[in-house]
Amino acid sequence: MSLYTDRGVFVCLEGGEGSGKSTQSKLLRDALDAEGYSVLLTFEPGDTLVGRELRRIVLSPETGELADKTEALLYAADKAEHVETVVLPALARGEVVVTDRYVDSTLAYQGAGRSLDVAEVEQVARWATGDLRPHLTVVLDLEPSAGLGRFEGRDRIEGESLEFHERVREAFVTMAKADPDHYLVLDARAPVAEIAAAIRKRIDPLLAQAAR
Amino acid sequence: MSLYTDRGVFVCLEGGEGSGKSTQSKLLRDALDAEGYSVLLTFEPGDTLVGRELRRIVLSPETGELADKTEALLYAADKAEHVETVVLPALARGEVVVTDRYVDSTLAYQGAGRSLDVAEVEQVARWATGDLRPHLTVVLDLEPSAGLGRFEGRDRIEGESLEFHERVREAFVTMAKADPDHYLVLDARAPVAEIAAAIRKRIDPLLAQAAR
Repeated sequence: MSLYTDRGVFVCLEGGEGSGKSTQSKLLRDALDAEGYSVLLTFEPGDTLVGRELRRIVLSPETGELADKTEALLYAADKAEHVETVVLPALARGEVVVTDRYVDSTLAYQGAGRSLDVAEVEQVARWATGDLRPHLTVVLDLEPSAGLGRFEGRDRIEGESLEFHERVREAFVTMAKADPDHYLVLDARAPVAEIAAAIRKRIDPLLAQAAR
Repeated sequence: MSLYTDRGVFVCLEGGEGSGKSTQSKLLRDALDAEGYSVLLTFEPGDTLVGRELRRIVLSPETGELADKTEALLYAADKAEHVETVVLPALARGEVVVTDRYVDSTLAYQGAGRSLDVAEVEQVARWATGDLRPHLTVVLDLEPSAGLGRFEGRDRIEGESLEFHERVREAFVTMAKADPDHYLVLDARAPVAEIAAAIRKRIDPLLAQAAR
């Protein structure tokens, strides 16, 4: 499989907790939908039958400690199922697939956040996804202290230290800088409509590949 | 981590369904236990907290279809947790660890059995386990048609075709042939006591590394 499909448009929103990914994903879906495009809004982890169970395992505080590699492999399993049964079929139909989180989240959280070798985590995640890449990844950049909610409501990942979340933030920005053709970094504190417009504008040239 | 630990003894029993792995694992545990060795009897998938949930997912017929890579990654996640939290700590205490299934099962079932590239599955499984290898792997070789129980009682893996199980059998024997120093292949149809004696004899020189 080539890295980027030549049919359909694959867009990913990435960023830390509370950065507005799901708000922006929905606004993008609604905007493209109104213009007559077929849009699939999806997310990781969890948007498949087995993914729901994996999401519960990796996020529920009741799971307790997991070995770092266990966690990375569970996220990779979720991705393998998501790409094969949800993302690729939708792209083959020419749809615009908007996913809330993808491989970069694993590289940031399980690679940079945990103590794993990022190159090794990447190899596993790329294998899981057949190295399918988003045509565009939007990074909604935000100071972790501004995005994390109250401690008592946090899941297994949100409950990690501020330093962990700072490494995650740094990882997203570093990946974006290395490949500006496929990334757009936006300040998550900007007004919602302004962010939405910036994303929409950047996606415009990609839409020639999309079915209406 | 080196492939083989220099403390403790790591023994694995492999083979198809109904080949007597669990019977032989228990006999070996009992024999070594009676001689005063500290023995840990364990298995894959499922002998950790998260492993129990993963075992249910990969084996329950209710799970239905999974992408091949999803299945391989779930088995790898089980292994990562098993090695880090069960196998390595026991070996560090100098124990004899006897596991019913390990990496070879993944290579045979998810590699040779499914349509995945075996070298890629191996890379993931080796990463999951930090490339820890058993000092000895015993393959209990059996014609699949002789080992599989009644169809209605079969789990997701047992319920696969006879051709699938024949590829699995072939894979175990091929791995054993390639590394005779670390494998012992036995005819699973031999009398139980005879098989147990052959395993015990082959393990004898390894026991210098074991705590009593």
